Amino acid sequence: MQAAFIVFDGMTSLDFIGFYDPITRLKSMKIIDDFAWNVCSLAAEITDDRGLKLKADTVGGTLSHYDMLVVPGGFGTRKLQHDEKFMAWIKTASDVPLKVSVCTGALILGAAGFLKGRRATTHPSAYRELEPYCETVVRERVVDEGTIITARGVSSAIDMGLHIVERFAGSEARARVATQMDYPYQWQV
Amino acid sequence: MQAAFIVFDGMTSLDFIGFYDPITRLKSMKIIDDFAWNVCSLAAEITDDRGLKLKADTVGGTLSHYDMLVVPGGFGTRKLQHDEKFMAWIKTASDVPLKVSVCTGALILGAAGFLKGRRATTHPSAYRELEPYCETVVRERVVDEGTIITARGVSSAIDMGLHIVERFAGSEARARVATQMDYPYQWQV
Repeated sequence: MQAAFIVFDGMTSLDFIGFYDPITRLKSMKIIDDFAWNVCSLAAEITDDRGLKLKADTVGGTLSHYDMLVVPGGFGTRKLQHDEKFMAWIKTASDVPLKVSVCTGALILGAAGFLKGRRATTHPSAYRELEPYCETVVRERVVDEGTIITARGVSSAIDMGLHIVERFAGSEARARVATQMDYPYQWQV
Repeated sequence: MQAAFIVFDGMTSLDFIGFYDPITRLKSMKIIDDFAWNVCSLAAEITDDRGLKLKADTVGGTLSHYDMLVVPGGFGTRKLQHDEKFMAWIKTASDVPLKVSVCTGALILGAAGFLKGRRATTHPSAYRELEPYCETVVRERVVDEGTIITARGVSSAIDMGLHIVERFAGSEARARVATQMDYPYQWQV
């Protein structure tokens, strides 16, 4: 089980770290021993929407062999959804069986054509921008369409991450992860 | 108003990004125009507790001129609390008027002597380790002692960050930031 976590300039770091924390605990808490991930980008280093610099461990290359793709949001998505090189790279993930977004990361999944005929959500400020890309924009916090999961605004990344822990490993594993994260909130999809 | 956000090897990234997101919105949402921050470390690049690499923008030097110090947690703190060089650096913040920790970051504030005579909290797994450093270990999610604020486990960073937004800019600003973060949970200290 190998996940690709996409990072890019102008990303909102909490969109990323919000799911990175619960999902990577599948490995660090020994829930799924072979769970692994890469932090993937088209550049070795990216700068988030407020100036923080993060490093990717995997630069470019196809995304086709991953089991899960997760795309955070941030104002950088407004430009990237129309960036041919970036979108060609994201489209290499077309056969990835589970594609996930947080916040305006949904615009990237949408621009890649992954949301056609699907219900999806995004940051409330971007509902209208998402409309052309999907069947229906819904206002739920986490929308699970089986092979596509979209989470709403920034902090919904945590609830989405815990939902994925539950999908992969069950409700007891989710509860253990939430306890270790000291997360008292119970958002159920 | 200048904040020092401390980062180090073995840090839990959500401890950091959980407060970084709401607090830096003081600037990005134009709530406090002169709000500024540095990401401070003793190394130019750090690796978190699951392998993610982040860059500091300020390496070493005194912390004495900052208005706020914020220290995240992570297993790296277990060693750093006994690291003379690191603790000498943290102690340069002794006159910083507001000192804040998340999770086991409290062990660092404690080892620096900043928690003497104070109520404080930390990750529930580290209550006993915190005891020698403070007056009373309390189990509240965010403990505000005026010049010292300690937050409990990982995800409490968000609630602490929103509390600081409210302290600096009022409840209306806090509500605006929470809305932009799409954070529906209402933790009041």
